[in-house]
Amino acid sequence: MSFAAADLTYDAFLGGRLHIWQPRRGYRAATDPVWLAASCPAKQGDSVLELGCGAGTALACLSTRVGGLTLAGLELQEPYAELARRNLPVGSEVFVGDLARSPAELRSRSFDHVIANPPFYAAQGAVRPTDAGRGTAHVEDTPLATWIDAALRRLRHRGTFSMINRTDRLADMLAPLDGRAGGILIQPLASRSGRAADRVIVHAIKGARGPLRLLPPVVVHEGDTHPGDVAHFTPTATAVLRDANPLTLGAI
Amino acid sequence: MSFAAADLTYDAFLGGRLHIWQPRRGYRAATDPVWLAASCPAKQGDSVLELGCGAGTALACLSTRVGGLTLAGLELQEPYAELARRNLPVGSEVFVGDLARSPAELRSRSFDHVIANPPFYAAQGAVRPTDAGRGTAHVEDTPLATWIDAALRRLRHRGTFSMINRTDRLADMLAPLDGRAGGILIQPLASRSGRAADRVIVHAIKGARGPLRLLPPVVVHEGDTHPGDVAHFTPTATAVLRDANPLTLGAI
Repeated sequence: MSFAAADLTYDAFLGGRLHIWQPRRGYRAATDPVWLAASCPAKQGDSVLELGCGAGTALACLSTRVGGLTLAGLELQEPYAELARRNLPVGSEVFVGDLARSPAELRSRSFDHVIANPPFYAAQGAVRPTDAGRGTAHVEDTPLATWIDAALRRLRHRGTFSMINRTDRLADMLAPLDGRAGGILIQPLASRSGRAADRVIVHAIKGARGPLRLLPPVVVHEGDTHPGDVAHFTPTATAVLRDANPLTLGAI
Repeated sequence: MSFAAADLTYDAFLGGRLHIWQPRRGYRAATDPVWLAASCPAKQGDSVLELGCGAGTALACLSTRVGGLTLAGLELQEPYAELARRNLPVGSEVFVGDLARSPAELRSRSFDHVIANPPFYAAQGAVRPTDAGRGTAHVEDTPLATWIDAALRRLRHRGTFSMINRTDRLADMLAPLDGRAGGILIQPLASRSGRAADRVIVHAIKGARGPLRLLPPVVVHEGDTHPGDVAHFTPTATAVLRDANPLTLGAI
């Protein structure tokens, strides 16, 4: 099973440095995978695994910024995995499988970095969208603890873990890291200055013991209201979303 | 056992609206209890319990701002409980006891609000100060989960819980609230603009189900560096620390 060509769009990311095939209906990337990729401290030669990679937007953004990476993605749904193979550089590996039961090819491997942008809504009480693909991407069937457990298993000692999610899932992201990863950095993303953060990036180092730090929020949009349909990004957001710069966490 | 008069100081809080007897050596309040009291949404006629009340600074700050409260404190160390009795309004109750085993007088009671400013350092690996009083206040013997469990037991349904602590204890504060309290608000306090938050106030409502929110940080000091010995507070910090205003969480 795969998407028909007519059901795909070819969308620009990172100020046109990158284009991604995405389904016209279904799970479509907005800016979350771009922020996630920007926060991953991968360096040339490193290996990176994305759990639930979808069409591969985050890995593609990362490989646009950093050359010479070994990229791997794990995706439950075959049609999205197929898109990821099309969107990612030659040599990237995309596995189809459930992260709760890592495919055999992955089980013996470890990575320098694992990233994830899991579904945003807990299954309980969530309204499941009618489109099957979007349903799997947006409604949680796999608990966040399972995502984090899978990520930590696939990381080398001192490898980094980065996850973006809704702020209201913060406690569920922190609990599974307890005793297994340290140096936790919480990077809030607030749509506007002075607002509560909509999103958080949680970053941790496997086997480290450093203290948790709560970083100042990154503000995405200028001003107090949205002037029409045009996005007015802050300089930081422009640097990340348009100019493919890294989001260096905890540099302060 | 109690402190000798010569071992006490009489210190101004809230711009001189309040004075507190404190030991010259031992656990002395800085601004944390003032922030904690400011964040408690108590209204005239409400009942408030502080776990580990020390000399009663937080409760005294709260009763300076809000009239007609029923105040109760629980303190492990008799000499501090004695100071709290001296510092708090007539009619306040201060119990001596271990919060892990609530005194019988408290066990049948429930409160509208419970506040706590627990010791800041986990026992493991912490250097225990030589002064016995300060040791108990600053080095953790009782896990945060026990504090939070005690707080939730003493709260009425929909009562509010407020705790201030070091940011690196955030995960340990959130985990025990899971499934028992909701509407969690995390209020970071950052010493200066653009810095990681040193402290967080965690606020929750017993039995509620609202989503966790991560609020924009409150910045305490103006500027990038500390100009000499004078505290240059931001307008928000001045309003809370000097003018006895509330810190209304999540008003945005």
